[in-house]
Amino acid sequence: MIILLNPAITGPQRLAIEAVLGSSGALHHTQTGPRGDVMVVTANPGGLTPDQLLGMPGVAGAMPAGQGYVQAGREMHPADTVVRVMGADVGGSAFLLAAGPCAVESEAQMEACAAAVAAAGGRILRGGSFKPRTSPYSFQGLGAEGLRIHRAAADRHGLIMMSEVLDREDLPLVAEVADVLQVGSRNMQNFPLLRALGKQPKPVLLKRGLAATREEFLLAAEYILSGGNPGVILCERGIRSFDPSLRHSLDLASVVILKEMTHLPVLVDPSHATGRRTLVTPMARAAAVCGADGLLLEVHPEPGRALSDGPQAILPEDLLRLSADLRALVPVVGRTFGGVP
Amino acid sequence: MIILLNPAITGPQRLAIEAVLGSSGALHHTQTGPRGDVMVVTANPGGLTPDQLLGMPGVAGAMPAGQGYVQAGREMHPADTVVRVMGADVGGSAFLLAAGPCAVESEAQMEACAAAVAAAGGRILRGGSFKPRTSPYSFQGLGAEGLRIHRAAADRHGLIMMSEVLDREDLPLVAEVADVLQVGSRNMQNFPLLRALGKQPKPVLLKRGLAATREEFLLAAEYILSGGNPGVILCERGIRSFDPSLRHSLDLASVVILKEMTHLPVLVDPSHATGRRTLVTPMARAAAVCGADGLLLEVHPEPGRALSDGPQAILPEDLLRLSADLRALVPVVGRTFGGVP
Amino acid sequence: MIILLNPAITGPQRLAIEAVLGSSGALHHTQTGPRGDVMVVTANPGGLTPDQLLGMPGVAGAMPAGQGYVQAGREMHPADTVVRVMGADVGGSAFLLAAGPCAVESEAQMEACAAAVAAAGGRILRGGSFKPRTSPYSFQGLGAEGLRIHRAAADRHGLIMMSEVLDREDLPLVAEVADVLQVGSRNMQNFPLLRALGKQPKPVLLKRGLAATREEFLLAAEYILSGGNPGVILCERGIRSFDPSLRHSLDLASVVILKEMTHLPVLVDPSHATGRRTLVTPMARAAAVCGADGLLLEVHPEPGRALSDGPQAILPEDLLRLSADLRALVPVVGRTFGGVP
Amino acid sequence: MIILLNPAITGPQRLAIEAVLGSSGALHHTQTGPRGDVMVVTANPGGLTPDQLLGMPGVAGAMPAGQGYVQAGREMHPADTVVRVMGADVGGSAFLLAAGPCAVESEAQMEACAAAVAAAGGRILRGGSFKPRTSPYSFQGLGAEGLRIHRAAADRHGLIMMSEVLDREDLPLVAEVADVLQVGSRNMQNFPLLRALGKQPKPVLLKRGLAATREEFLLAAEYILSGGNPGVILCERGIRSFDPSLRHSLDLASVVILKEMTHLPVLVDPSHATGRRTLVTPMARAAAVCGADGLLLEVHPEPGRALSDGPQAILPEDLLRLSADLRALVPVVGRTFGGVP
Repeated sequence: MIILLNPAITGPQRLAIEAVLGSSGALHHTQTGPRGDVMVVTANPGGLTPDQLLGMPGVAGAMPAGQGYVQAGREMHPADTVVRVMGADVGGSAFLLAAGPCAVESEAQMEACAAAVAAAGGRILRGGSFKPRTSPYSFQGLGAEGLRIHRAAADRHGLIMMSEVLDREDLPLVAEVADVLQVGSRNMQNFPLLRALGKQPKPVLLKRGLAATREEFLLAAEYILSGGNPGVILCERGIRSFDPSLRHSLDLASVVILKEMTHLPVLVDPSHATGRRTLVTPMARAAAVCGADGLLLEVHPEPGRALSDGPQAILPEDLLRLSADLRALVPVVGRTFGGVP
Repeated sequence: MIILLNPAITGPQRLAIEAVLGSSGALHHTQTGPRGDVMVVTANPGGLTPDQLLGMPGVAGAMPAGQGYVQAGREMHPADTVVRVMGADVGGSAFLLAAGPCAVESEAQMEACAAAVAAAGGRILRGGSFKPRTSPYSFQGLGAEGLRIHRAAADRHGLIMMSEVLDREDLPLVAEVADVLQVGSRNMQNFPLLRALGKQPKPVLLKRGLAATREEFLLAAEYILSGGNPGVILCERGIRSFDPSLRHSLDLASVVILKEMTHLPVLVDPSHATGRRTLVTPMARAAAVCGADGLLLEVHPEPGRALSDGPQAILPEDLLRLSADLRALVPVVGRTFGGVP
Repeated sequence: MIILLNPAITGPQRLAIEAVLGSSGALHHTQTGPRGDVMVVTANPGGLTPDQLLGMPGVAGAMPAGQGYVQAGREMHPADTVVRVMGADVGGSAFLLAAGPCAVESEAQMEACAAAVAAAGGRILRGGSFKPRTSPYSFQGLGAEGLRIHRAAADRHGLIMMSEVLDREDLPLVAEVADVLQVGSRNMQNFPLLRALGKQPKPVLLKRGLAATREEFLLAAEYILSGGNPGVILCERGIRSFDPSLRHSLDLASVVILKEMTHLPVLVDPSHATGRRTLVTPMARAAAVCGADGLLLEVHPEPGRALSDGPQAILPEDLLRLSADLRALVPVVGRTFGGVP
Repeated sequence: MIILLNPAITGPQRLAIEAVLGSSGALHHTQTGPRGDVMVVTANPGGLTPDQLLGMPGVAGAMPAGQGYVQAGREMHPADTVVRVMGADVGGSAFLLAAGPCAVESEAQMEACAAAVAAAGGRILRGGSFKPRTSPYSFQGLGAEGLRIHRAAADRHGLIMMSEVLDREDLPLVAEVADVLQVGSRNMQNFPLLRALGKQPKPVLLKRGLAATREEFLLAAEYILSGGNPGVILCERGIRSFDPSLRHSLDLASVVILKEMTHLPVLVDPSHATGRRTLVTPMARAAAVCGADGLLLEVHPEPGRALSDGPQAILPEDLLRLSADLRALVPVVGRTFGGVP
């Protein structure tokens, strides 16, 4: 059982709750969350039920463990979370554009990408220096040198730097340089990494796993939130489907459902979701009018020479045209383009 | 092997092709399609290959049987097909709205729906009188009486009547009354029905099966086209996925891919695809800006009393609001709202 | 709501139930099932609940409509159903072998197949004369002539003839000749066909749809049972999955679950489920020890020349070897090979 | 491009290959694998193709990077790999039983499990001390204390100890104590962990990801093999499917296909694959006769009190009965029960 405490709980109220747990033989520990403490009951020999706790003063919520994304869910936190990074808003009425190459490859490539992102009104420059590649023989990223190139390009164009972190051993290195830390879909349930991300202050963009249910997605976010880090941005990026004529199926309806289930901002990555350049622009437009808080796109000055995922990268001029479309579309759904309200 | 003949093929060219087939011991028959004859090689003991035919005068294409959607594909027919029904265009630059209840229930219900569709600028009034229901104990439709009610409501509001046909035995009854015949997703591979639909003149709206690949979808369309009926409208309506928190996954990227693969118009049905009212409007907007030629929606004056699929029906006032959004959105992608260019 | 009546219900008990329904304004009709009548409540303005009916004398069960596979489920019929066809048992402790070609092609081919099936201890000779083919340009079956060839081959070897029926228009033709009628996976939700099959006496082998849930599968069976035909045999034949390296995924665990949910016999078709010859024998062995009531296999004397599905057909000598394996395996799970207990 | 070198390659042959690469401007590095060196071409400006290398002396194979599981595939290594751990064979003609609880909970629980595994003829005692749990509020394992308990129980009963490792930071701790290291399905593409496992000597049991294709599975194995560790055991444990009535779909046909694609041994875990006790025994029997090299099962003395995955654990007496079935079944497919040939 998880018991969510009211942030304004008094000492005597807390003692009363602990007395109920103790008298029934229950063991628990308390986690400090961004919106109040959470008591996690780890042994419950007396069979206490959430109902027995719900009426007590100081208890904001109680539910069975393993089912509850208490801190990611809307029930306890009805209002939308806006994650602020270096002056940009992710969530709320802003519509954010994040773009960049799949992998950081060179100074020239990152300069071209950064210029393209800035020109299109984007706020975040993505780019991987540690790459999770399906084959051990594929390009694995430039590592620390890539982080340095990425940082410099972002700074020259006033952009926020977002980079992927593969496991907790790499975390200090990436977190020292990047502004936003990305967790890829293959790592959505790398729980030690999620725990470590919960205990550091930088915002985290968490991508949905290829076959993760929406509930599992929110429970992965809960790992970060329950560590004390409120800055979680979700990203929908395509799920496995049965039709081999497309790499993934972009599950746009999930954006709407996730926004019902959670207060966290939700971006859409149509590049990885489709894997094909001609689909990126139409699906980006679709995401913009169905409730997404922004887009995560792959752009590359020479997709034919990209060291990874070239077929899904759009060109700088495509990004500019898409940006014009987005500026026309998002006001229809009450949003402001650009990550600034 | 399938051999597509040039519409302008001469008699001697045809004889030369038949001579090559005959000398190799191949058996074939010839089908008359809307865009030229198709020779279907049914026995090929000499192992003739498409390459051997492709260079011959009068041959527009040749491909292995079982793989080719020659008449549905773009290869032979690069230009978009526009299906004209009673003055409305489906396909081309028009953006069409088709709406109505899941099932025809009563005169009053159909009148309310027809009025709502007309007020929103819709052109087609949908409504099932023969319903394919998962359980034998669910409401199965009003049958012939439903068709009569449907026809009258459509006529009162100048709308096109679209109704589902469940098998070839019902076809004469429905085809006599309706303007457009609908084939549901469960029937996408009811081949005797598809063949029969190919041999009658009314346009057919063909829904994608719940687990059909895009190739299978186009081969189903090929059944109708190869019978001689060029009026096929495709409809994407959600596919099976692994997350039980939503009935289906609306595969919007398929719209873009289908438009690359085929010249046939493609509508989107966000009502069946999501099964939940709150998702219909956002996904309808998304469909409108990613390349769909129109929408198929469920509307009901009193969804709570609907005899089938109430939870996914939107209200007349929702339809009106959505229609305003669509009028603002579709010009961004170069389309005109309303089914008239 | 569905109300299942006790077979031994008295007239006064029935009147009492009807009075309760009538006084609450409910409308209903009564269907005669093989194990008692079923009242289907079609309108329920007073909001009667199953609980209010369950206590009444003569009521064997009551549940919400649309959710219940009352006649296919174990709740009302705990004991296994054994379908008897011409002296063979399908279900119970028998383990049945059904085999034959995908399509009936010629006298010689059917003679070779029938001899192989008989030699291997099989009881049913399968073979399609009306073939549901994905492409309109593929071989569609020999029709009536195929039925004649099939019947003669079955009779020469004392085998039961099973043939597919594609829609209700073909039903009289096939039902006149065949002993068991097969409904393919693409037709699992061809409801007019299922209804028609419920109103004729021959046993029906119903294949699971490619993306059908187990509940939908049983509701399809319910269509046949609720028409009055108790002879339904289920067949698991692979579901759609995401890995393109295999056509389908053989869902063997479903056999166990189906046997928990329903009293109907369950066969497994590893040929269609895998689409590849080398997989058929191992998966057939697997099916034999996990609870299946038998196998449905494709065998062909010359798979390389088969007019359909050659790559998944095994040779007569493979069938014989498999049969030896099966005779060794099925006693471990308490079954007798051969369809005779 | 990947170039697999012949183990008997001479110095001059190697120099000749490097000269070809160098003259075309290609960059490469060389990895030392268990069966010969592998040259990985990381830049290929001259467009060298595998064909140009394949004819050269000393080259055993060449293929495009990113597609090839050279060391996991059968092409280069046709013979079955047998992984030997402490006197037990995994692979070959042996049929191995590995069992134990999901999570190590206490001395008493592990003693009961170890006794049950030994009594049933099992060779490996599984049990997790670091648990990957979907919810942050679920039991996460006993950590180092669990490893100690597990080791002691395995030693008392002469069993091999297998334990899960969650990321590379935990690896030294687990590798010091356990005999076989397990990588869970959620970590199948934790590439830094896989790389680290390739550089240490203990055998690794790698579970297939919930939505991983067979090709991705083998590429994950390739990460370990290409680091120099030949001791990789694959484990099939169910994939995501669309039917909510079962947690996963056990993809048994994959076992047969994997055995065609790779020389590595393949176990089956019916406990996680089904999540339900009543399915474990039938699916274990099915796995035993379709080509699997062994089973991985969850057993618990008191499933109702298990701290994780209780509903899928079988009882010690179930394990004993299953073991008797397996002893009767596996000889039919030419195998010897017990992990010793």
